[in-house]
Parts: sequence; C-alpha cells; structure tokens
Amino acid sequence: MFSVIIIEPENPGNIGAVARVMANFGFSNLLLINPHCDIKDNQATSRAMHGRHILRKAKVGSIDLLDNFDYLAATTAKLGTDYNIPRSPLEPSQLAERLAGIKGKNIGLVIGRESNGLTNDEIQRCDFICTIPSHKKYPTLNISHALAIVLYEIYMAKGSDKIGSQIIPAGKKEKDAFFSELFSLLDNMEFSTEEKRETQKIVWKKLIGKSFLTKRELYALFGFIKKIREK
Amino acid sequence: MFSVIIIEPENPGNIGAVARVMANFGFSNLLLINPHCDIKDNQATSRAMHGRHILRKAKVGSIDLLDNFDYLAATTAKLGTDYNIPRSPLEPSQLAERLAGIKGKNIGLVIGRESNGLTNDEIQRCDFICTIPSHKKYPTLNISHALAIVLYEIYMAKGSDKIGSQIIPAGKKEKDAFFSELFSLLDNMEFSTEEKRETQKIVWKKLIGKSFLTKRELYALFGFIKKIREK
Repeated sequence: MFSVIIIEPENPGNIGAVARVMANFGFSNLLLINPHCDIKDNQATSRAMHGRHILRKAKVGSIDLLDNFDYLAATTAKLGTDYNIPRSPLEPSQLAERLAGIKGKNIGLVIGRESNGLTNDEIQRCDFICTIPSHKKYPTLNISHALAIVLYEIYMAKGSDKIGSQIIPAGKKEKDAFFSELFSLLDNMEFSTEEKRETQKIVWKKLIGKSFLTKRELYALFGFIKKIREK
Repeated sequence: MFSVIIIEPENPGNIGAVARVMANFGFSNLLLINPHCDIKDNQATSRAMHGRHILRKAKVGSIDLLDNFDYLAATTAKLGTDYNIPRSPLEPSQLAERLAGIKGKNIGLVIGRESNGLTNDEIQRCDFICTIPSHKKYPTLNISHALAIVLYEIYMAKGSDKIGSQIIPAGKKEKDAFFSELFSLLDNMEFSTEEKRETQKIVWKKLIGKSFLTKRELYALFGFIKKIREK
C-alpha cells in the first residue's frame, strides 16, 4: 500500500491540491500528521476537485503513525549538502524506480511543512530521501507541485496505462513500403545532378525516421506519393 | 527563448502557481492570452511567492502573438488515439528531449483553459502535443501541476549533454514558406473527399513540426514539392 504523508500541513488549499494530484495519478491514501489548519476548509474542498473523496477519507494522527510503514521516503527541497543528512538524495525518477521494485509493503512518501520542510529528525526516520533538482535561485517548490512530480515519476515507473501503449508507431514493413513507393517516384523525376536525388532520399529517411508516425499517418503520406506517381 | 503561454486563464491563483513553478525551474517568460480573470488579484501574487517578478513582467495579448513563435508545443490532458491524428502526443520527457535540441529559436509551451483545455484549432497551430500520462478515472491535472511536470522534464533534459544540440532547425519563416508551397499543391490535387485533403495537411504539419529539419533539409523538400507543382 502506498500513502502520501504530510507533516503539519499549514494551508487547506495545498491539501486540496495534494488530493487532486493524487487522484490524477491513481493514488488514494492520504495521511495528515498534526495538521495546523482546518482540513475541512472550503479552500481544501474546492481545490481538490474530483479528488474530494481522498480528502474525505484522509487519516489524521500523530507522528507515531510513521511506525506503521515498511518504507518511508522523504521529499525535501534542500540539496544534500547538509552533513546532517545521512544519505545522498535520489532524484524523483530514481526513487520511483526503487519503489517500483517493492511489493506488498506499506510505503509512505513524506512531505514536509510548507514553511520549513522536514526536521532532521523526521528525515532520519526515512529510508530514502528524494530531492527535486531545481533552480538554485528559488529551489523551494510548492508541496503539491513537488508531489505532482514525484507521483508522476512513480506512475510512469509502474508502467500502467502509458501513452505509448496506445499509440503504435508504424513498423519497418510499412516504412519500407513507403520508401519503395517514394524512391520509385524520385527515380523517375528529373534532377540536375544525381547528388540532388540522393539528398532527397536522405532527407526523407530522416524525416520519417524521426517523426514516429502511426501506421495510419504513414498510410496517408503513402497515398499522397502514390497519387503523384499516377499523374 | 522559451515562454510559457496560457490561453484564457480563468483563475488568478493558478496564474500565481504557474509563476512560482516557472521560477523553481529557472524560466521567466510568461505570456497570457486574453485572460478571463484579474491577473493582479491578491491570489495570484500570494501564490506566486518568490516568482512574483515573473507575474509582474508577464505579457498579455491576443492569440495572434502565437505567430511570433518558431515552435509551439501544446499541453493537453486528452489522450490521442490512432484515429485522431492531430493529437497523437509526446510524453513530457520526449518533448523535453526534442526541445533540448533546439537553439536560438522562439519556443512556446501552450497551456489551455482550466475548464476546457485547448480547442482543436489551437492544437492545430502547435508543432507538438504533449500529454501527461495519468489515471483514466481523473486525468485532468491542474494547469500548474501539468506545467510543473513538463518544466521539470525540460529542466532535467537541459542539464545533460544531448546529441543534436548543435542543430539549428528551420524557423517559422521557412516552415511557413514550405507549407504555403505544399498547400497550394494539395489544393490543386484531386481528393475523393475534402476531409482527405485536410488529413494530408494535418499529417504534413505534424511531420515537419516534429522532425526539426535544418533549413537546408527543408529547402530540399521545398524543391521536391516545387518540382511536382511545376509538372
């Protein structure tokens, strides 16, 4: 089971935003440790949008609840230059990779206060530390933005319903058929030098190679070339 | 130059959140197209935090400002399928990789309305479409969360030495000239339905938009089309 844990949240709007982005990536267990604000506030509900059910069933409790987890990952904006930090931080994609390998355990992603992040003690309790690389002038992300990035990476690492699985680019067979049609056309056209004809072939190879057209799209282009050949 | 473009933003708080996350990843050019809310609202300023300077110098204007960009990438929550050509999307990391290879051009990342996203027309104007894989039950991210993820990926991609970073792709002017030539050709060709002609235009837009041909390569294709027109 995977949970998002917020330590002493201070802003109801942020809690709502957290609930929404959890719903966006299919997560539903939210644990709020000692909230310092009214979590039933309108701001929370309105920003949660279709993630309201996550807010409603969020657990509220003390820091001791962290003992219920098999693995805890801390999210912190601070880079690992502080010598108090026991472990060098992981990037979100690295964290996601490791979490994806853990099965049947209680995993908690720990997010700190909006104002002060996590204390050293809280960080010490965690197995992993995850830091989001960001611009040094202003590295502190809003907690819901930080969470959006980490949950996104976890979602991607789990490989559930990825975009790529829905879009299938044309394969070698279709591409070869296309090039055969195109090259016949080019071979029958007049060019001032042979080099120019070759340039055409090279450009087309690159064009098609880089663009990952779907079968259907490549077919449309095939139709275009065929129509021209028939003229 | 890289800009974040929001089409008809409706919520000042979201604009503030956008400014903050832009600052977090070191971006600073924000363009607001026909805002439907008061962008000087307190909500905007307070959520922008240390990204307030980005809000202050944000440009506001009409949709025509999109013409100033060499490459536009649309961000949309809707998945594309094979049957809906204009929307077959890139994942954020794929988009980031491609954008990292472009130098010296005006690039705009286009974000739609909070309520309705982008219209088909607006999507058609873009060279790339980027969709964030998310849970099918509630795929629609808050615009600042979507932006956080895409900017994060771009920030990460820029950090590493990418192959292709020396390539200077053709700009808007060259692309427009090419499409004008190509569309004249298509308009003079016979198609069994008008829809098929439109499909050709859409496929070509996508093909050229996604492939980052150099000026010289685009000229070669231009020559190809011109030769065919002359026949």
